[in-house]
Amino acid sequence: MGTVTGAVPKQARSRVTRRHLLEAAVACLAEHGWAGSTVAVVAERAGVSRGAAQHHFPTRESLFTAAVEYVSEERSTALRELFQTTPAPRPRAAVVEALVDLYTGALFRAALQLWVAASNEEQLRPQVIELEARVGRETHRIAVELLGADESLPGVRETVQGLLDMARGLGLANVLTDDTARRARVVDQWSKLIDAALG
Amino acid sequence: MGTVTGAVPKQARSRVTRRHLLEAAVACLAEHGWAGSTVAVVAERAGVSRGAAQHHFPTRESLFTAAVEYVSEERSTALRELFQTTPAPRPRAAVVEALVDLYTGALFRAALQLWVAASNEEQLRPQVIELEARVGRETHRIAVELLGADESLPGVRETVQGLLDMARGLGLANVLTDDTARRARVVDQWSKLIDAALG
Repeated sequence: MGTVTGAVPKQARSRVTRRHLLEAAVACLAEHGWAGSTVAVVAERAGVSRGAAQHHFPTRESLFTAAVEYVSEERSTALRELFQTTPAPRPRAAVVEALVDLYTGALFRAALQLWVAASNEEQLRPQVIELEARVGRETHRIAVELLGADESLPGVRETVQGLLDMARGLGLANVLTDDTARRARVVDQWSKLIDAALG
Repeated sequence: MGTVTGAVPKQARSRVTRRHLLEAAVACLAEHGWAGSTVAVVAERAGVSRGAAQHHFPTRESLFTAAVEYVSEERSTALRELFQTTPAPRPRAAVVEALVDLYTGALFRAALQLWVAASNEEQLRPQVIELEARVGRETHRIAVELLGADESLPGVRETVQGLLDMARGLGLANVLTDDTARRARVVDQWSKLIDAALG
């Protein structure tokens, strides 16, 4: 049993190192794009040796897809927790606003860089397609739950999907310029339309 | 006057060369991304000498922003012409579908590559911001006109903006995988929401 007890702090250290690498990878991708993002650059930013980084992530592709996945999961958890104490029916305007917030900021910028790089890089493509499908399904599930949407009714599933497509488009509009003021007006109006559509 | 007469075919040839370069630049950007897109690569693709290409576009940035602008204008013109013979009120579902179509295909992929590159490249950024603002305003104008939307009514402007944001998000969803089937269902449902909202 001595081995097991001794292994615990080492495993904990390893988890902390992994998390630092993943967070540094997202920040690096958002700031410098795929071309400027390598395992070595991320290791330095995270204060981790290059050898240790390569032990966790043998390839550049595995590091960056894992990073976007990790941060997406963190965001999903935070979003669920945000409304955990709010009893249903939750105010839909607040839910729409929180969903749109998922697509502004460093995580979306990093995911976008990865997405666009994957369209030109064959070795990245399958991993990113798989990741996007998984994150997309999870985001849809959270949206349905928080909006209190009844997907057995015709059109409801597509209303929610279109909302998430709109959120993605709003994220894109925010990449080069600060689109906060316009976005607030669009979100306000579409919250009303979504609320009416979901009944 | 001999000079003027003699200059016409030369000017016409020059315009044709320019158009070939711009079309090759959009195709190149959509297929290979910013990193793989240089004036030399585009010149070869267009069957134009590198010197002639550089005469038209002294910098890489000027070639690619001009290319996205040219193709955007072509698309806008085509969209207006599509509904020129359709008397108002035009069928809104058809208009929404045509607007969404602007964001799928090679032009959107090229613009996306340029957009993402501009977020990491300082020398490209101001030109792309200016271009996006111009194309964005023009697309909004066309959307308002074709949808027969009355922007003096509260919320109408934001309803149309949100639709174009959704179209942009649908474009992004189509970059890595063929999203045609899902998109058709979302567009069908959102057409109904838009139609009801615009009255």
